[in-house]
Amino acid sequence: MPQARVHRIPARAPDDMTGLTRLIRDGVIDPTGIVAILGKTEGNGCVNDFTRAFAVAAVKAVLGTVLPAGAVNRIVYVMSGGTEGALAPHWLVLERSSYDEGRRPALAIGTSHTVDLPATGLGRRAQVEMVRVGVLAAMTEAGLDDPADVHFVQVKVPLLTAERIAAAGGAVRTTDTLKSMGLSRGAAALGVALALSELSEDQVTDQAIGNDIGLWSGRASTSAGVELHNHEIMVMGMSRQWSGPLVIDHAVMSDQLDVDPVRDAIIRLGLPIKAQLVPSERRRILAVLAKAEAGSSGRLRGHRHTMLDDSDISATRHARAFVGGVLAGLVGHAELFVSGGAEHQGPDGGGPVAIIAERE
Amino acid sequence: MPQARVHRIPARAPDDMTGLTRLIRDGVIDPTGIVAILGKTEGNGCVNDFTRAFAVAAVKAVLGTVLPAGAVNRIVYVMSGGTEGALAPHWLVLERSSYDEGRRPALAIGTSHTVDLPATGLGRRAQVEMVRVGVLAAMTEAGLDDPADVHFVQVKVPLLTAERIAAAGGAVRTTDTLKSMGLSRGAAALGVALALSELSEDQVTDQAIGNDIGLWSGRASTSAGVELHNHEIMVMGMSRQWSGPLVIDHAVMSDQLDVDPVRDAIIRLGLPIKAQLVPSERRRILAVLAKAEAGSSGRLRGHRHTMLDDSDISATRHARAFVGGVLAGLVGHAELFVSGGAEHQGPDGGGPVAIIAERE
Amino acid sequence: MPQARVHRIPARAPDDMTGLTRLIRDGVIDPTGIVAILGKTEGNGCVNDFTRAFAVAAVKAVLGTVLPAGAVNRIVYVMSGGTEGALAPHWLVLERSSYDEGRRPALAIGTSHTVDLPATGLGRRAQVEMVRVGVLAAMTEAGLDDPADVHFVQVKVPLLTAERIAAAGGAVRTTDTLKSMGLSRGAAALGVALALSELSEDQVTDQAIGNDIGLWSGRASTSAGVELHNHEIMVMGMSRQWSGPLVIDHAVMSDQLDVDPVRDAIIRLGLPIKAQLVPSERRRILAVLAKAEAGSSGRLRGHRHTMLDDSDISATRHARAFVGGVLAGLVGHAELFVSGGAEHQGPDGGGPVAIIAERE
Amino acid sequence: MPQARVHRIPARAPDDMTGLTRLIRDGVIDPTGIVAILGKTEGNGCVNDFTRAFAVAAVKAVLGTVLPAGAVNRIVYVMSGGTEGALAPHWLVLERSSYDEGRRPALAIGTSHTVDLPATGLGRRAQVEMVRVGVLAAMTEAGLDDPADVHFVQVKVPLLTAERIAAAGGAVRTTDTLKSMGLSRGAAALGVALALSELSEDQVTDQAIGNDIGLWSGRASTSAGVELHNHEIMVMGMSRQWSGPLVIDHAVMSDQLDVDPVRDAIIRLGLPIKAQLVPSERRRILAVLAKAEAGSSGRLRGHRHTMLDDSDISATRHARAFVGGVLAGLVGHAELFVSGGAEHQGPDGGGPVAIIAERE
Repeated sequence: MPQARVHRIPARAPDDMTGLTRLIRDGVIDPTGIVAILGKTEGNGCVNDFTRAFAVAAVKAVLGTVLPAGAVNRIVYVMSGGTEGALAPHWLVLERSSYDEGRRPALAIGTSHTVDLPATGLGRRAQVEMVRVGVLAAMTEAGLDDPADVHFVQVKVPLLTAERIAAAGGAVRTTDTLKSMGLSRGAAALGVALALSELSEDQVTDQAIGNDIGLWSGRASTSAGVELHNHEIMVMGMSRQWSGPLVIDHAVMSDQLDVDPVRDAIIRLGLPIKAQLVPSERRRILAVLAKAEAGSSGRLRGHRHTMLDDSDISATRHARAFVGGVLAGLVGHAELFVSGGAEHQGPDGGGPVAIIAERE
Repeated sequence: MPQARVHRIPARAPDDMTGLTRLIRDGVIDPTGIVAILGKTEGNGCVNDFTRAFAVAAVKAVLGTVLPAGAVNRIVYVMSGGTEGALAPHWLVLERSSYDEGRRPALAIGTSHTVDLPATGLGRRAQVEMVRVGVLAAMTEAGLDDPADVHFVQVKVPLLTAERIAAAGGAVRTTDTLKSMGLSRGAAALGVALALSELSEDQVTDQAIGNDIGLWSGRASTSAGVELHNHEIMVMGMSRQWSGPLVIDHAVMSDQLDVDPVRDAIIRLGLPIKAQLVPSERRRILAVLAKAEAGSSGRLRGHRHTMLDDSDISATRHARAFVGGVLAGLVGHAELFVSGGAEHQGPDGGGPVAIIAERE
Repeated sequence: MPQARVHRIPARAPDDMTGLTRLIRDGVIDPTGIVAILGKTEGNGCVNDFTRAFAVAAVKAVLGTVLPAGAVNRIVYVMSGGTEGALAPHWLVLERSSYDEGRRPALAIGTSHTVDLPATGLGRRAQVEMVRVGVLAAMTEAGLDDPADVHFVQVKVPLLTAERIAAAGGAVRTTDTLKSMGLSRGAAALGVALALSELSEDQVTDQAIGNDIGLWSGRASTSAGVELHNHEIMVMGMSRQWSGPLVIDHAVMSDQLDVDPVRDAIIRLGLPIKAQLVPSERRRILAVLAKAEAGSSGRLRGHRHTMLDDSDISATRHARAFVGGVLAGLVGHAELFVSGGAEHQGPDGGGPVAIIAERE
Repeated sequence: MPQARVHRIPARAPDDMTGLTRLIRDGVIDPTGIVAILGKTEGNGCVNDFTRAFAVAAVKAVLGTVLPAGAVNRIVYVMSGGTEGALAPHWLVLERSSYDEGRRPALAIGTSHTVDLPATGLGRRAQVEMVRVGVLAAMTEAGLDDPADVHFVQVKVPLLTAERIAAAGGAVRTTDTLKSMGLSRGAAALGVALALSELSEDQVTDQAIGNDIGLWSGRASTSAGVELHNHEIMVMGMSRQWSGPLVIDHAVMSDQLDVDPVRDAIIRLGLPIKAQLVPSERRRILAVLAKAEAGSSGRLRGHRHTMLDDSDISATRHARAFVGGVLAGLVGHAELFVSGGAEHQGPDGGGPVAIIAERE
């Protein structure tokens, strides 16, 4: 019976492989079991963020020395640029180990890769459907039959660049490269929502993508990268087909300050948090994965925010920094996987948060 | 017996005077009693942030229609640029009213203006001493005899620009305009520390300014602006010579996540906060004034942060966004006066927080 | 017979009125003759650039001390944010003086104000037509009968805000306020093109506005401002009804490096430029007004540029810095009025340039 | 007799190796002859610019497939971040080929690596001397006996990190890691100046390094990188011991607009440029290598620039964009190697420019 293991490793740079190398060398991580590697890298998280591709290249180079090329490429790599505020660059290495015994249900992980998405399909139903099918495939791989058991779906999506737009010949959904990231993230999130039965097929039209903020998944986290043309999908949930000490739960923040549902999820995971987690509790939180975004109304609890009007710093960077502060105030440190661009991921201005913890 | 009144007014732009104008017109604010106006404006909070000067010009233009010029210029204007994350642009109008009765001690406010600081004195003992004397003058005006009763000292300080450096002829402490802001803020904070007996004279040398991070005031908040050449000082504390419903207390955060002392201060002010203030409690918090900064070690609770290495976004902007999130997670909204650049204001990476509340 | 006068005044800040004040005090500028004031201010030139409004407020405050309010408001104010690279902040004060004699034809200036544009007309034929008529009115005022004599048309246009969109009831061209700025600038530029017979009526359809980059005016320069609901139009050209030493001509750059047409225009103005203007020649150039933009193909003469993919610095800022360098390399200094946002103003990636010079 | 060859290859991303790979595969480039690879990458060119390290990693990975590791590491890699304005990302591959015949003198290239620089020597005479000796060694390798024949010296220098400072025990020139980059670049440039007899030994004191802007080399270009502890030096000049079609010359711009010396150098290289190079001439320019910086006076030819006061965009980015425009206006395209950080490299606000061209 498989067991999921999660390793959180600090990163001194987008290509800092010292931690991963040491853990593999010391036998703590078995590279053949690695299912996915997530990285919070220190770029701008927007179009011209090359730290994500740099990180993927560095990880692949290291894994290439201990794994065959086919195995290296089957791993899902999700690099999320942007460590605004005090967010700490780090890696999350997700491993499928094969211990036989342990408590059940436990954290389960599955992955899938879609085929390449044509530039003209980006931000449209074609992308939604491609992701929906991919999520179902990853759920099957993880032994997650019931959508209710799924707590987190990470999808890495492509984006448009000036070059790709020119090559596509004008039939693209948008010619604004930064906007293409949002449309791609949004379409993928709606694909997750369909796979998890959070929405019905007829609700998700071409027109709704990027426009109807009432449609969202409470468990999708999507991020865009210039380095890929297809989708890389990872699903996490609680499965009786997996065992071990790790558990996962999730919450949906209704706005950037809605920290109570996150606190409740932490309590459900067995940690009696009141204000801020104390060090002994904090140690049992292995990973916090959250989406942050600036609410489109331009207001947060009645007060104006300026994130959407700032032409010097993109709203996604503001949102990561701020929500990073909100969540770090709860958890007690800032080595958190907060990513931006939460289109159709949680309600407008809010977002999903998943927490992986160790049982007592 | 004087009574302090505090009005928090949302701002739709740096020159949005609709709120102030209406409150004056409706008799809620008596312009003759205005002691200080603080503004959180939506610029970058750094060298080329003209929203601060624009705000001051707009406020002065409005007050000029109801007050003589001398009265307009006696008011202390403290504009703090930077509403990163969800921080909401707003005004804080501090009024000295003359009700005779009420509970004592109560919030007391005093101000003073120094003479112009020569560019060569910036970031040096000359500036420290100038501010020390100015703070004592403001304390006297406020009826605050004991430094222990002082909870917050705001000082607006000048900075160096390329033009001022050229005019000074090379004898300046630094030729880096952004760094001059930090040195000026730091020297002023040390002046506050001397006035409040937090440090002794011999500790504060030219060399220590900007370098010895072990020296700090737990109640100073200083901010730099290109629009002034002197210092504008405002002191707030609890005085038996003032009465009324308003009270003030302060906390010192030891790092950007050290929210417990702030919670304790809120509890001391009579609000039984647990996690996040609920709306009924939130209403009684009139103002939160905090300093935020990126710790110089490059680490927060053992995890690396990237604020100091980011050449796209200044560390002060990162810090305001993140600490804004931490504090807003506690208070429940983001209309908070979080300002950056906390040199010698609180311990390295932390900072002072003052809270003004209404008694039950 | 009227004579046009142009004063170029350096600005030390967006509200630096020392130059204007001195010239008025010294009798060099007669405020009653001021027709328009253009300002190159040091903001980001994008949505949250408050230096423009700050500049207008400062200029109006100064003029209000020497002119009646009606006269102050009849003046056309055009503030263009963004002094990237070495571009120098400065003012251009355009004056209609009344000397009787002098050489003819000479620089002529005319202005007009349209009625308010309904929100539903913005970015549509209604706006194009309104501007077309307004330009013709300004031409008449300037004594410019032949469109061929017109060399520069500056139009300040309105934009949509959330309030205006709500009031319009949904029939607006776009609900994206930032996008409305581009559509409004573009529609106005096409209105100029019709007035100057650069395009024919049937070419300019609703659909073409903001989409067909093949349609453009070689003499339009338009900028959007939240503070107006109508259009403020200024036309400059060569008229036999005006006399004096000043002359104007224009060029159209086909791309960001197409400096030869600008050189030719300078030669037509009587300056025998070869490489870079020498100081004696440079002195005779009173103003250079240019539009800059990043070509939408992502390429400049076959080489990739990264302006459109940069999420740290907006493409308009890159474009101003770079074209500022190209033009300053020709003129020999960087006190040039280079502005961004060139929708339908010159060909894609290029833009119009107008030069005002003094005859020998 | 060796022959120098220069390949300019466009880059679609910092790790775009398609051009290099193809040229090696097609036999156009013999990898065993590669002496140096320069890359203009699309990062911010400042502290957190990871595109440089990404580029080096990508190049080494490709070369590692065709060369032994020792050969890969003997090559000099100089990556300069920042393609502001329309500057085009590209590679310059410098090859030492071994054709026997051809015209003489011709472009000659030599390299050297110094021993590691102790942290305490950085920014001091020890570094100057180490670079001086290293430049002389590279000149010898290149067959350049007379300093007058040297036209360009590229030096890659180390910088200080927190770890290196701690290890050095406090005796370092600065504890500010960013400042250490400038001091290291400056000291290396002065080392070049001594090697080329541009300055005399007694002029270059510890105190002068980083302070005396009157001391400079007109042929040095230095850049700092965290990945090395020693210096990598590349010298280019005209030598009778080399033959072939390539020639090099250089110019020193006295300010950011001083384009005439560059034009003169192009004419000396045999291209009869008047205004902008026409396509047939442009084709013969193989590489333009220039340093750009914002003048410390805050003025350019008497007009204020705002580069040093901009807290949103670093001055080095403004400078590259603007000087990129100036030089591209001359050359006719923007695939130019313009880099920033010109401490002691050319006069204050100006910088050296080297041009490599093909003979007619």
